[in-house]
Amino acid sequence: MSESFILDERLKKDTLKVASWPLSEVLLMNDVRYPWLILVPRVVGVTELHRLNESQQIQLLAESNKLSRVMEAIFDPFKLNIAAIGNVVRQLHIHHVARYEADFAWPAPVWGQGESELYSPVRSEEILTKLRLEFKDRA
Amino acid sequence: MSESFILDERLKKDTLKVASWPLSEVLLMNDVRYPWLILVPRVVGVTELHRLNESQQIQLLAESNKLSRVMEAIFDPFKLNIAAIGNVVRQLHIHHVARYEADFAWPAPVWGQGESELYSPVRSEEILTKLRLEFKDRA
Repeated sequence: MSESFILDERLKKDTLKVASWPLSEVLLMNDVRYPWLILVPRVVGVTELHRLNESQQIQLLAESNKLSRVMEAIFDPFKLNIAAIGNVVRQLHIHHVARYEADFAWPAPVWGQGESELYSPVRSEEILTKLRLEFKDRA
Repeated sequence: MSESFILDERLKKDTLKVASWPLSEVLLMNDVRYPWLILVPRVVGVTELHRLNESQQIQLLAESNKLSRVMEAIFDPFKLNIAAIGNVVRQLHIHHVARYEADFAWPAPVWGQGESELYSPVRSEEILTKLRLEFKDRA
């Protein structure tokens, strides 16, 4: 199925590509307000988590666990927020957001709270490099 | 671990108990604005999904799948929203919300949108009965 996968245009516009994992694209939301990563399983036509088949679900779980551990290691969040919403962008995607008691939206969830603040090129390169190194260390 | 599990006071106050599944308590949010169910794994001291052990994660996945299928069968949502947030209530709990294009908060997520509207006793009994019957049919 993955051969005809095309990343949703809105996700493409709002994120920076970090990595391709066995099931999912790993994206960094281009918003300095929160360390915010997104997994997008390369499965065409599935919009709900429970519609993934069993092996896809197990793989997604493994990738979500790995991403969560990496985010804890790098960002030391007070709380992780993990969610599959998809009301606006229908392509299945799973948010992983590192939250802090002093962040912009706390304690509310991050969706629909003000406008994104984009990374500078220097800052985004720095964070992408950190993430990729940490991914490699845990490969 | 489960012997000393105590449901968080805020969750207890805001929900109606539907069932006890092998890993999780199944709760109905007392808010007529959305069909909104919550899974609370009876695991003490874990606040992040990836900190559940492997067998707990697999069981949670099975329970989330079952709950999603039941919610689709009964409520026929336009979209399911599934999320582990936990910024306010730290006890690990996983929201499952049936969403419609005409619902109160659409297309925003449901958290922090206005005030809950409580079920009448008749209406809550009706929905609890429907859920329990559908759970039994899929046991």
